[in-house]
Order: sequence, then C-alpha cells, then structure tokens
Amino acid sequence: MKIGIIGLGYWGTNLVRNFAGLSDAKLALVADSRQERSKILSKLSPTSAFTVSAEEVINNPEIDAVVIATPVFSHYELAKKALENGKHVLIEKPMTSSTDQAKELIEIATAKNLVLMVDHTFLYTGAVRKMKSLIDSGEIGNVKYFDSTRINLGLFQPDVNVLWDLAPHDISILNYLVKEKPCSVQASGVSHTNNGIENIAYIFVKYNSGFMAHFSCSWTSPVKIRMMLIGGDKKMIVFNDVEPTEKIKVYDTGYAHKTDEEKKSVLVDYRTGDIYTPKLDTKEALAAMAADFVSAITKGTKPVSDFESGLEVIRILEASQISIKEKSREVSI
Amino acid sequence: MKIGIIGLGYWGTNLVRNFAGLSDAKLALVADSRQERSKILSKLSPTSAFTVSAEEVINNPEIDAVVIATPVFSHYELAKKALENGKHVLIEKPMTSSTDQAKELIEIATAKNLVLMVDHTFLYTGAVRKMKSLIDSGEIGNVKYFDSTRINLGLFQPDVNVLWDLAPHDISILNYLVKEKPCSVQASGVSHTNNGIENIAYIFVKYNSGFMAHFSCSWTSPVKIRMMLIGGDKKMIVFNDVEPTEKIKVYDTGYAHKTDEEKKSVLVDYRTGDIYTPKLDTKEALAAMAADFVSAITKGTKPVSDFESGLEVIRILEASQISIKEKSREVSI
Amino acid sequence: MKIGIIGLGYWGTNLVRNFAGLSDAKLALVADSRQERSKILSKLSPTSAFTVSAEEVINNPEIDAVVIATPVFSHYELAKKALENGKHVLIEKPMTSSTDQAKELIEIATAKNLVLMVDHTFLYTGAVRKMKSLIDSGEIGNVKYFDSTRINLGLFQPDVNVLWDLAPHDISILNYLVKEKPCSVQASGVSHTNNGIENIAYIFVKYNSGFMAHFSCSWTSPVKIRMMLIGGDKKMIVFNDVEPTEKIKVYDTGYAHKTDEEKKSVLVDYRTGDIYTPKLDTKEALAAMAADFVSAITKGTKPVSDFESGLEVIRILEASQISIKEKSREVSI
Amino acid sequence: MKIGIIGLGYWGTNLVRNFAGLSDAKLALVADSRQERSKILSKLSPTSAFTVSAEEVINNPEIDAVVIATPVFSHYELAKKALENGKHVLIEKPMTSSTDQAKELIEIATAKNLVLMVDHTFLYTGAVRKMKSLIDSGEIGNVKYFDSTRINLGLFQPDVNVLWDLAPHDISILNYLVKEKPCSVQASGVSHTNNGIENIAYIFVKYNSGFMAHFSCSWTSPVKIRMMLIGGDKKMIVFNDVEPTEKIKVYDTGYAHKTDEEKKSVLVDYRTGDIYTPKLDTKEALAAMAADFVSAITKGTKPVSDFESGLEVIRILEASQISIKEKSREVSI
Repeated sequence: MKIGIIGLGYWGTNLVRNFAGLSDAKLALVADSRQERSKILSKLSPTSAFTVSAEEVINNPEIDAVVIATPVFSHYELAKKALENGKHVLIEKPMTSSTDQAKELIEIATAKNLVLMVDHTFLYTGAVRKMKSLIDSGEIGNVKYFDSTRINLGLFQPDVNVLWDLAPHDISILNYLVKEKPCSVQASGVSHTNNGIENIAYIFVKYNSGFMAHFSCSWTSPVKIRMMLIGGDKKMIVFNDVEPTEKIKVYDTGYAHKTDEEKKSVLVDYRTGDIYTPKLDTKEALAAMAADFVSAITKGTKPVSDFESGLEVIRILEASQISIKEKSREVSI
Repeated sequence: MKIGIIGLGYWGTNLVRNFAGLSDAKLALVADSRQERSKILSKLSPTSAFTVSAEEVINNPEIDAVVIATPVFSHYELAKKALENGKHVLIEKPMTSSTDQAKELIEIATAKNLVLMVDHTFLYTGAVRKMKSLIDSGEIGNVKYFDSTRINLGLFQPDVNVLWDLAPHDISILNYLVKEKPCSVQASGVSHTNNGIENIAYIFVKYNSGFMAHFSCSWTSPVKIRMMLIGGDKKMIVFNDVEPTEKIKVYDTGYAHKTDEEKKSVLVDYRTGDIYTPKLDTKEALAAMAADFVSAITKGTKPVSDFESGLEVIRILEASQISIKEKSREVSI
Repeated sequence: MKIGIIGLGYWGTNLVRNFAGLSDAKLALVADSRQERSKILSKLSPTSAFTVSAEEVINNPEIDAVVIATPVFSHYELAKKALENGKHVLIEKPMTSSTDQAKELIEIATAKNLVLMVDHTFLYTGAVRKMKSLIDSGEIGNVKYFDSTRINLGLFQPDVNVLWDLAPHDISILNYLVKEKPCSVQASGVSHTNNGIENIAYIFVKYNSGFMAHFSCSWTSPVKIRMMLIGGDKKMIVFNDVEPTEKIKVYDTGYAHKTDEEKKSVLVDYRTGDIYTPKLDTKEALAAMAADFVSAITKGTKPVSDFESGLEVIRILEASQISIKEKSREVSI
Repeated sequence: MKIGIIGLGYWGTNLVRNFAGLSDAKLALVADSRQERSKILSKLSPTSAFTVSAEEVINNPEIDAVVIATPVFSHYELAKKALENGKHVLIEKPMTSSTDQAKELIEIATAKNLVLMVDHTFLYTGAVRKMKSLIDSGEIGNVKYFDSTRINLGLFQPDVNVLWDLAPHDISILNYLVKEKPCSVQASGVSHTNNGIENIAYIFVKYNSGFMAHFSCSWTSPVKIRMMLIGGDKKMIVFNDVEPTEKIKVYDTGYAHKTDEEKKSVLVDYRTGDIYTPKLDTKEALAAMAADFVSAITKGTKPVSDFESGLEVIRILEASQISIKEKSREVSI
C-alpha cells in the first residue's frame, strides 16, 4: 500500500514521521506548495518523493491513500477529488468547513466503498482510552456533565476562530465517551482583533437526558490549562493533560438526591472516598492513529476516529458559529 | 454605637466574632429563631444578648445598626423594616432576590441618609486589593477579559441556584476591578435534581468596549477550583485562591495585533517575560469589612462594598436567571 | 478525673482547648508563670482555675494527672515531681533533654504504676495511621528506606537546635511505623548564628537489615516542605503534609534485583503501576491524643504515644547531637 | 576543525546531534564498539564516518578534537592517549575515576597547550546562568547554604554508585555558583543490592566561612524530584527543574540575627516579600556547551565547564566515597 501526504506544515511533519515508520505501508509521496519544505522531508523520510503539487498526489495512480494536512478551507475540495479518484482519505481535524461538505464526502466514500477518516489523535491516547474504559465499564455511573478547558497563548489563526482551532480535540473526546446525541448548542465569544475572529469562546451543549457539556477555549491565557472534568453519579474523572505523569485521576465521589417530602426540599448526599491515578499507556497516539487508518484499508476494520466522529464535531462547531453570530441563541441540532 | 445581628448560621458566627472584636462599636444583640444557637453566642460573645425574634433587633431603640445574615429571600423585608426604623443596615450577599427590591432599599436608605452596605467580603482581601492596585495603576494595561471558575462539592441550596450562591463573590470582584458597565448577560445551566434548581451554570457578560467576563460555577466538582484570569494587553493576572501563599501571579505577558495589509490578515504578537508573585496583606478580610461599616456610620466614609456594588451583582444574577429560563438568550441590562 | 496543665504557650492553648473538650475528665487547673495568660484561659476554658505556680498543680491533691507543656529543659524536673506526687504525666515532645532523664522518669512511673506518656501528636493523625495500616498489612512489602524533609522559615530556638525542635515529629513517626531498632546515628549541621545552635541539620540512621532513615531539618528555607518518602520493595508511599487533601499517595512501584551470573552484574527491575490516594480520617489528632491519655489512666489501655516512643526519640536526638559535635562521626546506639 | 566522538550510547547520540549541527566544525568520525550503532549515526549525521575502534579516532591525524562519551572507568585512558596524540579533549561527566587521574590529564593538557574540558551541561542552561548572575550581582547577599535533591526511579549502574551517577550535575553547579573551596566532606549511603553499590546516598560539605552544601541522591524514589535551595542572607532561590516553565523562583526572603545582651540569647529576624520567577533562556544547553568547546580551541576562550570544574567534582566524589566506606567520617579535602 502506498500513501501520499498533502501538506508539510507543523502537523504534517508529525504525520510524515509516523507514516514513514509503518511497516505495512509505504509513504511514497509528499506534497507542499513550498519547495523549501523538501529539505525537511529528505531528513524525515529520505525514501519518499516530494512535489509542490497536491494534484500530483491525488492523480498519481500508484497512490492508494491520501492524507490531507492543509488548512481547513481546502479539506473538502482535496478530499473530494481524492475520493473521486478512488483514494482512501484521512483528513486532519476539523474535517471540513461545514456539515454539508462533510456529508457529501461521507456519501462519496460510502458509495465508492472507500475509507474516510478524520485525525482526532486524542482518541488514541492512553488517557482517553482509559476514560473510555472507565465509562463503558459502568464504574463512573451515569455521566452527568463534561467540562473542558483548553487555554494558553496560542497562534491567532487568520481564517478560523479559536473554537475551530482548539475545540475539535475536546468535542471528539466528548463524542467518543458519551453516546447520547446533543439537542442544542449555545456559544459565546469575543474577538480582540479587528477581523472579528473570536480568540476566546465558550460552548454549552444540551442533551435531553439532562447531561450537559461545556467547552472553554482561549488563545490569550497566560497559563496553559488542559483540563477536563467528567462527573458521574458514582465517580468523577479529572483529566489534566499538562500533568506529565498523573494525567487521569478518578475520584470515588458520587452524589444522590432525594426529595424531603416534609420540607418539600431536595437533599443531596455526597460520598467521597479514595482517589486513584491509573497508569496509562504511553505509546504515541499518532502512530496508533496511522496504523488504524492502514488497518481500516487493508483489513476492513472500523476506525476509532471515523467519519461520523468527524461529522459530529463539525455539527457542533457549525452550530456554535451560528449561535455566536446570532447573539448566543440556542441552536437546535 | 450598638449593633444587632440577625441570623446566627455559619456566616453569622463569623460576623459575630468580628463585630464582637471591634473597639468602637458594641455587639449588643443577636437574633436567631433557633433558641439553641444562644449557646454558641455565649461562647463567642458573652456580653451580647440573644433573642429568637428578629423583630426585637429591628425595633430595639438602642440598636443603631443591623446586620442581616439570614437566607436571601428574607433580606429585603428585614432590611426594609430596619431602614424604616432608622437603622443603618449591612446585608449578607447577595443583597436581595431582585433588582427592584435592591433599588427600593437604596431609595429608602438615601432618603433617610442611612448607611446601606452589602457584605462582599472578598473586596477586603489582600488578593483583591492587590489586583485593584495593579489595574488602577495601569500596570496591566487595557483589561480585555475576566474569567472566573468557582467549583467544588457544595451544599445544594434549596431555594437559589448555584449562581446566586457562588457567583456573587466573583461578580462583586469584577465590578470592583472594572468600571465599565456591561451591556448584556447570557447564561446557561443544568439541574441534576428534580426541583429544577441549577447546580452547574455559566454566565457570559458582554461589554461595548469588547471587554468580556465569564463565570463558571458548580456544586458538583470533585476538585475545588477558585481561579480567576484577568488579561490585560500589557500584563495578565492569575488569582488562584486555593494556593495557600502564592495566590496572585502577575505575568509579564502582553499581546498586540496589527493588520498585515498585503495578506489582509491579522497578526498577533505575544510578549512573555518574568512572573512575579506579590506579597499580600493577610489581615482578616471580614474584620476590615466590619470596620468599614462602622466607619461609614461614624465618620461618613464611603464603604468599599457599597449598595451600588450590591445592586450591580443582583442585576447580573437576575439577568442570568432570565437568560437560563429563556433558552440562554442574550439579555440586555 | 481532674487534670492540670503546666504551660500556656502556643501549644499549651491547643492542649487546653482539647482537654477542656473531654467529657470524661475535667481540666481543673492551668499554670503559667505569666499572670496575663489567665485571660486566655478564661476564654478557652472558663471553668478552669489559673495559677502562676507550677508547684501548685503538682502539689494539688485533687489533681490526678498533669500535662507538661513548658520548654524542654524543665520537662524532667516537673515530670519527676509530679510522678513522685502520684500524678499521671503527659509530657510535650521532646520528652526530656537526655536519655538518662527519660529512663529515670520511666523507672519512677513503672514503679508507681502511673501512666507516663509523651505527646507525639502526629501518631494520631489520619495520615500516619493510614501509613501504619499500609505497612502492617504487608501491602508495602519490606520497607527499605524512610526519608523525611521538614523545612521552612522557623523560629530560631534559643536553647535547642533545629533537630530537637523539628525532628521529634518525624522520628516518632519512623519508630511508630518501623519496628527494627537502629544500630547507629550520624548527623551533620551548621549554625548561622554565633551561639553555635544548628539551624540546618541532617540525620542518617543505619539499621542492621539494610534499612535506613534520613532526616532533613531547617529553620531557614524560603519554602515550606513537609515530605516523607517510604520505600518498600512492593510499594512506596509519599506523605506530603502541606497538600490540603491528598496527603498520602501510594505508588504501586516496586523493585527487585537479581545477579546476572554471566556479566557478574546486578540487574534491578522496576515495576510501576497505578497510584492511589486514600481518603484519610480528618478528626483532630490532638483530641485523640488527649483521649488516649485519659483512657490509659481510667481503663489501663496502652497509649499509642507511650514512654518508649518518647525515649526512642531522645535516644536518636542525643546521638545526633554527639555526632554533630564530634565531626559527624557514626555514633552507635 | 574536525571532531571525533567515542561512544554512541544515550548521551553520545545527543552529542552527535549537537556537534553535527555546528557550523564552524565538522563531526568527521564516530566510534562505538557495537557495529549496529552505525545505523543510528547515519540517521543523525549522514556525513560522519563510523568505526568500531576508539583507537581509530584517537590515531586519526585529521581529527583535531575528541569527545569521550564512554563509561567512566575508560575516560582516563582514552583521554590520555588522545591528549598525547595532540588532540583537544572533551570528556563526559564525571571526568575520571579519581583525582589522580584527573590531575594527570590536566598536566598533559597544560604541558601540550591543549583544551581539556568536561561536559557539565547544566552550567549552560538558562536556569543555572540566571542563578549565577543573581549571585554574582550580589542580589542574593552572602550565600549561606546550598541544598540539592535529585531522586527518581533510576537505572542501577553496575560500576558506580548513585553519587557518581547523579551528583556531578549538582556539584558542578555548586562549584560554578560558589567560589569558596570546601574544607571537608562527609557522606552516608545504603545499598539495596548485594554488590554493595549505594543506590541512596547523601553528601554534606563543610566550608570555613560557615557556608554548607548538602546533596541527596537516589535511584529508588517513586517521585522524580530535582530541587535546589540556595539561601542567601538577602534573598533565596528555589530551582525546581521538573517544573516546565517556572524553574527558578527568587524569594525576597532574608534573615539577620543579633544578640540580645540582656537575655543572652540570639534573635533572628526574617523578612519576607515578593517572589519573582524570571524568564529563562531556553536555548539548548548542550549546543552551547559544544560551541564553547570549539570556541576554546579556535579562539582560545576559557570554557565555562573547564578542567578545574571537572577536577573539583571528582575531588568531592572521591572524598564522599572514602567517607561512606569509613563509617561516614568527615574527610578533609
């Protein structure tokens, strides 16, 4: 199997390193419009060819699968052409600029029986996989809320706001961990530049069951925070991704409420106990993601970070954008 | 000067301890409907009298000033009677259940030339006073955002939601530090009990200048977080109130943006430098608040935590409540 | 049962508060040579009498038990008189200024069948009791080392060095947790004042089994550290006493060594796994210590912090002092 | 200028990467007895030749300078031959196995006017350079103590104890920051294996001025601690190397003592103020060290990590080893 990568920016170099390291696929060709990036490729993967033309990758009949790591606005067009040319496609997150685009790509891939996948790398980390198993096993109980903060001094993107840049990580984790579909999205944000692109923004997602999710994103925080709280009625999880070794803590803390008939009031009882910090698998997530893509192609396995995951992320981002533009109103999805 | 306190619950005992310790005022009378609380009073302040009747405090002609530390719903009525009886009044936060009530109390106090104050204790802490001086001196530059998180395992209140319980602290700090008036409020929340009272909620406050504030409150977090980020274009402040000694950190981090005419894009430059952790005054805030109340009465000084501060907090809480009830819509104020 | 306390300094007030709170004993009399301390007593325990004379406590025929909370140099004489007068005795740590003194007190108490106890409060904390149960249950395996750091900006004592001031806490914990007796002590230290009293000092304690203990104490550290590492071959414990809630962490980390016959070298294998943070009992340790003293008197129970514990601490402190004075030489004990 | 490296183990690969990146010197030849290491070299520095023979590097007339990154026991012999062949030499820390060996190498280098340097990389870090400038400027005042802890789960070395493995970092920093020469060394340690090689050990270093240094090293700690306290009478420094961004904190904490003539006692006054966390240079230290070596050869500059620094480290390590073997006795140096 031969793979081509389009886009050799910051993340593209990580992709090259990981795809070059696979044993059951060959990284044959890498495209970037900047000719000077060829030097980087020759260091990272000397046996791969370089081209300045994305078309060359897409049209090359020897290439079986294409990885797209270009700016968001170009994802749809490149992926569409690649799929139409019969290539399997892996797209960097976020999948596309709109749900319509994402749905169209999914239709083509489904019709042509091609693998279409989105690189939500976090789903392959030891931390997220551990949270998944804690939730799936029932240890956490009914999940009541999900609250994520991802803030730091970040590069202001010229074309997408901070939600499109940072929130895909957290939304993809939310969708991976919790199966219920949201019913509405509400978002707020502010732009400190004159281009109107939000650099601080918040999303609130409602669900019919009473479950809720909240996302806080910022490019302008002096401190780097990567924290997720997941509250179940049996236990609660804190995922602190800036902590080098103790990323996941499971709190044996639960709460239950009952109605005091006499006083007509609601009483809530907490239970607090031990905390445990599970040892996590520290294998590189991106390598696992690359292997998952190849396995989906060669063995027909269902990838963890599949197109549905990609679409769900876009659905929430798109609704958030509408909400921000329309005075933070609640947008049904 | 003689002072009476109504309500000897958790916070009431702190008030008794601090008012009993004043040298220029006497804590004469304390009321609580639970007779058994008299034992606590005799330990804390043996020279103060006890009564089960709030009326007795309000009607006692020897009492010059009344401190109200009862549940929120009773603040308005008790304060109104006390003011009408010519007493100076200090009310526990939040001031009242509605802006109309707050405005009415302010009108009476103004007409009768009485001191009316709200106990926003945080405004008297060394940490908040240090932030105030950092901002007023211009060291922080133009303040661009304010983001506060106050979450922990908290007592579910039977009559008010988590915002009315926790957010007054942070809103009073915001109003103290930033002079601009907000133009709209938007809030979201969720209730995990069947009484519909939110135990997790968020507020987003918009300002005409582009400044914004965000509040995150929860009674159901396994970890206790008390963190405030204040971003200026010259420097940024992190206030971490669970840190025992290093509560305030000032980051010499700023950002400026310019428009790249050629690329039609916005460039943002960060500057990062040293961090400093100022030594804070550790005197008890509540003692300073009590002294401020007495000084306002005896010397006519303007209190830090005045009725306007109290009203502004209610204004934001009331608008938040409307927003939550009306599908998170933006509510002008 | 009637109790008298001698010494109403910083720790004495804590003792008064706790002994006054006991239901099965009465704090009858408190002595302090400073008359003005009587005011403090009348606030803390209005029903207890005050005297400036320690003798009055010791000679009072109504007093059954005496608590000694005076400077170290006076412990021996006061305790001796009290025991000779037939009183049960509790002494503040460290027990005495020398092992000879401690042994003499033990002899008298034993001969007269009186309770003699030392206030090593830490042995009654939830943290230390949890470590005790972890070690006794075998969960930690063979304990290989104990390393304790207790440093901060501390009051320079005029008569005893930093080891006599701070190390009794940690040595009493060590002796409580580990049954093996040490074979030698070696200590080093430095004095930054011209009185030659060490303000930074270290103790290294050797045991025949290969187990070791190390203590690091300082009055001149800008940061407060209270940390203990206990390494077993099955698991390891970190006790961080400045951490408000997560004081004890148990690391599922062990190590085993084998000899590689071929290479004539030693291989050590580590095993690392989960970490868990047990929930600790948060009852006040000093109240439990006071109750333990009363129970030892009234019910004949063996106290946790008994005279042997007190003597063992003095034994190590005394040997440390000799070692420091004799160029850090190893002193057998 | 042409450079050869002997030893392509863990640290050797870092050296190759940094020497290959220099613009004013060429990494011509790398030796490692394990032929399979050649693959690593071809990836890291494709233009460098590989050999399994250290002799080939030392005897090659084209090589101007040799970098020795082999196990400690072989440093002396390899360096001696290289110097005798007229090569400049950089040796991995610790310099040699004994002071006699170190002195002999220094004599040869001095006689032949060759650069002889030891790789104490830490001296080139932003953190250590910042501490150096804080101390040299007088901001810290008179330095009174230096206390270093370097513990974690570490590889048990087969031939040297934990002090020879870990302490060179901290001793080289001590010697760099403080000019006074020590007068004695005392050390203690314990071996948990049957080869008698200590895996936990402590060093206490005395100075005539009253200054002192202490080192705590362990291969068997469940937590990784890299902490250094440096106490001056004006200010104090905490260097926490596991902290990603805030490694250096400067405490505006000082202390002064005076003798109370009346009470014949010593009073110590503390002063505590702000803390500041300077921004540090984050350039790679190893690259700066490599450049310093080349500059010493080509421009005759005095290297920071010179042979005297290397010798002083060995002097303390050697004395420590004697002290441990002779029951922790104080060893003059």
